[in-house]
Amino acid sequence: MSEHIKAVFEDEVAKEEATATPLPQSRKIYVEGSRPDIRVPMREISLSKTPTSFGGEHNQAVRVYDTSGPYTDPIFQADVREGLPDVRSVWVEDRADTEALAEQSSGFAKQRMHDAKLASLRFAHQRVPRRAILGKNVSQMHYAKKGIITPEMEYVAIRENMSFQQMKANNSNVTQHPGQAFGAAIPEEITPEFVRSEIARGRAIIPANINHTELEPMIIGRNFLVKINGNIGNSAVTSSIEEEVGKLTWGTRWGADTIMDLSTGKNIHETREWIIRNSPVPIGTVPIYQALEKVDGVAEELTWDIFRDTLIEQAEQGVDYFTIHAGVLLRYVPLTAKRVTGIVSRGGSIMAKWCLAHHQENFLYTHFEDICDIMKAYDVSFSLGDGLRPGSIADANDEAQFGELETLGELTAIAWKHDIQTMIEGPGHVPMHLIKENMDKQLKECHEAPFYTLGPLTTDIAPGYDHITSGIGAAMIGWYGCAMLCYVTPKEHLGLPNRQDVKEGIITYKIAAHAADLAKGHPGAQIRDNALSKARFEFRWEDQFNLGLDPETARDYHDETLPKDSAKVAHFCSMCGPKFCSMKITQEVRDYASGLAKETTVELDSVKMVDVEAEMKNKAQEFRESGAQIYSKV
Amino acid sequence: MSEHIKAVFEDEVAKEEATATPLPQSRKIYVEGSRPDIRVPMREISLSKTPTSFGGEHNQAVRVYDTSGPYTDPIFQADVREGLPDVRSVWVEDRADTEALAEQSSGFAKQRMHDAKLASLRFAHQRVPRRAILGKNVSQMHYAKKGIITPEMEYVAIRENMSFQQMKANNSNVTQHPGQAFGAAIPEEITPEFVRSEIARGRAIIPANINHTELEPMIIGRNFLVKINGNIGNSAVTSSIEEEVGKLTWGTRWGADTIMDLSTGKNIHETREWIIRNSPVPIGTVPIYQALEKVDGVAEELTWDIFRDTLIEQAEQGVDYFTIHAGVLLRYVPLTAKRVTGIVSRGGSIMAKWCLAHHQENFLYTHFEDICDIMKAYDVSFSLGDGLRPGSIADANDEAQFGELETLGELTAIAWKHDIQTMIEGPGHVPMHLIKENMDKQLKECHEAPFYTLGPLTTDIAPGYDHITSGIGAAMIGWYGCAMLCYVTPKEHLGLPNRQDVKEGIITYKIAAHAADLAKGHPGAQIRDNALSKARFEFRWEDQFNLGLDPETARDYHDETLPKDSAKVAHFCSMCGPKFCSMKITQEVRDYASGLAKETTVELDSVKMVDVEAEMKNKAQEFRESGAQIYSKV
Repeated sequence: MSEHIKAVFEDEVAKEEATATPLPQSRKIYVEGSRPDIRVPMREISLSKTPTSFGGEHNQAVRVYDTSGPYTDPIFQADVREGLPDVRSVWVEDRADTEALAEQSSGFAKQRMHDAKLASLRFAHQRVPRRAILGKNVSQMHYAKKGIITPEMEYVAIRENMSFQQMKANNSNVTQHPGQAFGAAIPEEITPEFVRSEIARGRAIIPANINHTELEPMIIGRNFLVKINGNIGNSAVTSSIEEEVGKLTWGTRWGADTIMDLSTGKNIHETREWIIRNSPVPIGTVPIYQALEKVDGVAEELTWDIFRDTLIEQAEQGVDYFTIHAGVLLRYVPLTAKRVTGIVSRGGSIMAKWCLAHHQENFLYTHFEDICDIMKAYDVSFSLGDGLRPGSIADANDEAQFGELETLGELTAIAWKHDIQTMIEGPGHVPMHLIKENMDKQLKECHEAPFYTLGPLTTDIAPGYDHITSGIGAAMIGWYGCAMLCYVTPKEHLGLPNRQDVKEGIITYKIAAHAADLAKGHPGAQIRDNALSKARFEFRWEDQFNLGLDPETARDYHDETLPKDSAKVAHFCSMCGPKFCSMKITQEVRDYASGLAKETTVELDSVKMVDVEAEMKNKAQEFRESGAQIYSKV
Repeated sequence: MSEHIKAVFEDEVAKEEATATPLPQSRKIYVEGSRPDIRVPMREISLSKTPTSFGGEHNQAVRVYDTSGPYTDPIFQADVREGLPDVRSVWVEDRADTEALAEQSSGFAKQRMHDAKLASLRFAHQRVPRRAILGKNVSQMHYAKKGIITPEMEYVAIRENMSFQQMKANNSNVTQHPGQAFGAAIPEEITPEFVRSEIARGRAIIPANINHTELEPMIIGRNFLVKINGNIGNSAVTSSIEEEVGKLTWGTRWGADTIMDLSTGKNIHETREWIIRNSPVPIGTVPIYQALEKVDGVAEELTWDIFRDTLIEQAEQGVDYFTIHAGVLLRYVPLTAKRVTGIVSRGGSIMAKWCLAHHQENFLYTHFEDICDIMKAYDVSFSLGDGLRPGSIADANDEAQFGELETLGELTAIAWKHDIQTMIEGPGHVPMHLIKENMDKQLKECHEAPFYTLGPLTTDIAPGYDHITSGIGAAMIGWYGCAMLCYVTPKEHLGLPNRQDVKEGIITYKIAAHAADLAKGHPGAQIRDNALSKARFEFRWEDQFNLGLDPETARDYHDETLPKDSAKVAHFCSMCGPKFCSMKITQEVRDYASGLAKETTVELDSVKMVDVEAEMKNKAQEFRESGAQIYSKV
C-alpha cells in the first residue's frame, strides 16, 4: 500500500477514549468456568420496566456475545504500551509441551530486534516466544483428537451457550422459530465435549496461537454462531501507536470476531507486535504480503526460505491464522485467461506470477508439509486462500475457481493428517442462485472444514454499496453453512475505508451473521430480536436503541425527527404521530380479546342463553366507551 | 402525520434543478413502437475505449431501464405548474369506451373545487376527468382477456425487452449464467403478446389509470424485471409545490418504479393533484388514510359512503393503484392479541378498530364488489393490503397473517371476475428460512397474482440499518418470485426519511431487485454487471462509476483516496497502489496463455520433438524478460 493513499485512514483514526466507553446501559460481566481463570466476557444490556398501560412487568436484561475485550470494562485501564492482560499463559504452560525460547527463531525478527534505530518503535514488554518441544504438536485439534478438553474449548462452549442459557432461564417468555440448518447439526446446548468433538472432526477451529496469550478464545464452525472478520490495513507511519490499536478496537467494539492485519510498509513487524499484544480477538495475516515486501515487491524473487522465515517470524509474534494460497496451481493459471476479471486475489496473483516466471509448481503447494510443521509448533490455523476466486458475477463458479477448491480439499486432508486446524476461504462475486452450489461443493470437497467467505457480492452494478451487495450474499451463505464472513465496506473497489466505512461494514456483516443464525435456528438466537420487538411495541425507545447493533445511530435517527427527551417516553411512534397509532389499537385488540375470553367463560359456567344480536351491540357500545381511555386496562 | 414531525423532510426537500440533471455520460433515448406515439424512454450510458494495453477495443454503450421520466431529458423544460407532457390520452380516447365528465363525481372533490380559499393551492390546468361509459370496463385486464394488445402493453414489452435486444445485438460478447426461476417462466424475448397473455392470466398488471395520461407505462409481474416502490409522505404545507414534486422526482431519479403517496393533512387532495400531474410513474395510495382524515381520525366513524367518495375522488385524479385492506376480517383480529407486536399496519389497525367498535365485518370486505365497480371504471389496480402482516420476526407466518392471505386469495378471484388488475401486499418481518414459504403460499392462495412485499426484514436487531436487514429479504423474495419490492429506508421504525435516506433506500432496493433478476436469469440482465466488471478490470474508472447505480457516490468515494483526475486514468487501483497489482498480473497471464496457445499450434504443425525441461526454462526466461514491459502486447 503506497504512502500517499493512506492519508484518509490516517485522518480518521480512532481516539482510544471513544472506543473504550461501554455501550449505553451495557455492563461487562464474566461467567466463570470450571476453574477461576476461565472468565468468559459477556455484555449485559439492562432494560426498563414495561409501562403500566402495557402490563408493567419487569424485563430481564439481555446478554449478548461480546467481542470488545477488556476495553469496555470500566475497571480496565487501557495502556497500549502495557498490552492486554494475560488470559492463557497458564493454560499453555500447564500443558507442558512447549518451551520458552531464548530469542526469536526468525532471522528477520532477530535482525529487527537488534537494530538500535528501531528501539523507539518496539513494544517495550517483548514477551519470550514459545514453541512446541521438538516432536510435540500443540494444536487444539491435536488435543481434541486425543480426547482432551482444553480450557480454550470450555471457554468457547460457555461463550456459545449463552443464548441457550438465557432461553432456559426464561423459557415461558421466549419462543423461537425452528430453523432450517441444511445438514448442520446444532445441538440445543453447546457443551465443552461438543466443542472438542467438532474440533477433532475438523468441522470447527479455535484460532489460538500459543504466543497470543491475550486472546479471548472463540470458535469458527457451522454448528456455532456465524462469525465475521474485519480487515485493517495499518500504516507504515508509527508516530502514534494508539492510532494503530484504535483501528483494531474500533472493529471489535462493533462486533468483529477476528481481525485480519493486511498491513504493508517498512515497519510491519513492529506494528504487528503492537496489534497482537493489544488484541482480544484472533489476528489473521497473509504472510506472502510481508514476504513480498522483503523482495521489494518483485514476485519472482520470492523463495521458500524467505517465506519460511516469515511464517516463523509471525508465528512467534502470535498470529492466530495464516492465509496460505497453496491451491493456486500452475495448471489452473491459464484457466483464468478468458475471464472477465482474471485473477483478483492479491495473494493469488503473486503466486500466479511466481509460477509463470519460474514455470514451476507453486512453492506453497510443494512445501505444504513443511508449512504444516511450522503451524503445529505454535498452533497457527490454516486459512487456505482462494487465490482464484471470481472477481465478477461473470466469473463465478468457473473451472479455475472450482479446480482450486478441489486442491484445497486435498490440502485439508494433509493438514488434518498433521492435526492442523484448517478453514477454507471462498468467494467473492456470486449471483444468488449459485451461492448454495459454492457452499455444498466446499463442504464436500473440503470434508466439512469451516468455510470463510468474502461476501459474496450478488451483483456488480453498485460500487459504493458493496457492503450491501455482499451483505445479501453473506447472509445467505451463512444460512447455508458458512462459518465466518469477511466483511466488505462501502469503499470496496474504490478506495480505503475510513472509520465510518469500517463501522458500516461491520454492522452490515453482524446483520448478515445474525440473520443466518436465526435461519439456522441457533438456540436462543431470537432472544434479542424478541426483546427489541417487545420494546418497540411498548414504546420503550431507549431499550429499543440499546438492544440494537448500533445504539448511537438509532438514537441519532430518532432525534432528527423527535429530538426532545420527552419523545423517548412518548406512547406513539414518530411515523404516525400521537393522533393515530397502530400500536395503540393493538392494545385495544388485546383488551378486547381478553374480554372475549372472560365472557366465554361466564357463558360456559352459567349456560346462559343470550340474544346474540343484542350482545354484539352491547359489546360494540362497550368498546366505544372504553376507547376513550386507551391506556386503562379494562 | 402530525405537523411538527415533518420538519426534517421539509428542510431536506429536493431542489428541482438537482434532480433534473442527466446522470454523467448518460443520454435519454426513445425507442419507437408500432405507432409514432409509442416512444419508450431508456438511458444510454456511453463508454470509453479500452486502453491499448488491454486491447484497445470499442465498448458498446449500455442501455438501462429508465424511471426518471422527461426530467432527465435536456430538451424538456420542467414546469410543475404545467405538469408533464401527455403520453396516453389518445390511446385512452381511441378505445372509445370512456367519456369526459363535466365535473368531478366525488362530493368531496366538488367541495374542494368550489372553495375559493383553495384557489391558490390548486393545479391550474385541471383536466377533465374521464370515466368508463356506463357498463364498460376499461381495465387492461379486460382488454387482455378479449385478446386486445393495447399501446400500453406494447410499450412495456419494448421496455422490458431492452436487455434481450442488447444481448442479441452483442451476442458474441455477452455471456450470462442461466438462472433458477422457481416456476417463473421468463421468455427469452418479451413480446407484446406475451405481455397481453400475462395480464389476461392475472400474473402481471400495468397500473395505468385512464386519468393518469402522463404515465410512462410499466408492468409488475414475476416473469418481468423485479420492480421497486418508494414511499413519500407529503406535507400539508403547500407553500412550495416544487418541493412536493421534488420528493417524487428524487425517488424516480434513483430508480423507483412506482411511488406511493402516503400523505395526510388538510390539503392532500390538492397536493395529490400536483403529484400525479407531474409523475411519469404509477402512483399508489391508501385511500383509508384520507377517509380517516375526513372523520377527524376517529376510525369508528368511518362509513362506506365516505370511503366510496374517497375512492372516486382519487380515481378521477388518476391514482393508479389503491391499497385496500379488505382481508382484515373480524375473526382474524383476536388472533393478533398474543403477538409480540400485534397489528403494525396502519390500514390494518384502522380496520381492526372499526370492526371491533361496530362488531361487524370489515366494510371493505362486505362492499368488495362495489369497490370493483369503481376500479373498473377508471382502471385502478388493486393492491390488496396485508393489514395483519407481522411486525417482528416473532410474529412471522402466524395464523393471523396466513388467514388474511387466504382471504386475499378469495378476493383476487372476485376482482378477476370483474377483470380488475390485482396485486397482493406481503410482509414485513420474516427470518430468511421462512421467506420462501410466504412466496409459495402467496402464489398458491392468490392464483399467481403479483406479490408486492415490504422487505421483508430478516432480523429485528438493527434499528438504523433496516434498509439492509430488509434488503437481504427483498433480494431473496424477488428471486423466489416477488414482483415488486417496497423500499425501506435507514430511518424505518425511528423517524421520517430525509433525502439521503430516501436515496439510500432506493439504491438498496435497486440492488435487491437486480440481484433477483440475475438469479432468475432475466435475458440480458447481466449485461450491466459484465460491462462494469470489464471497466473495472481495465481501470476505466469513469466507466465504472457511470455504469453504477450511483455514479456520484462511487466517484466521491474514489476521490477520498485518490483525488486527482490523473488517478482516474491510472492503471492501478487505489487498494494496492502502483507497485503491485493483481489486475496487471492477470494481463501477464493472458499474454502467457495466448503464447502457450501459439506454441502448441506450432508444435502440432511441425511434429517437432523438444526437450521439455529446456523449453520450460526458456519459457520462464522469456516471461521474466517480457515482464519488464507489462503493458506491451507480446
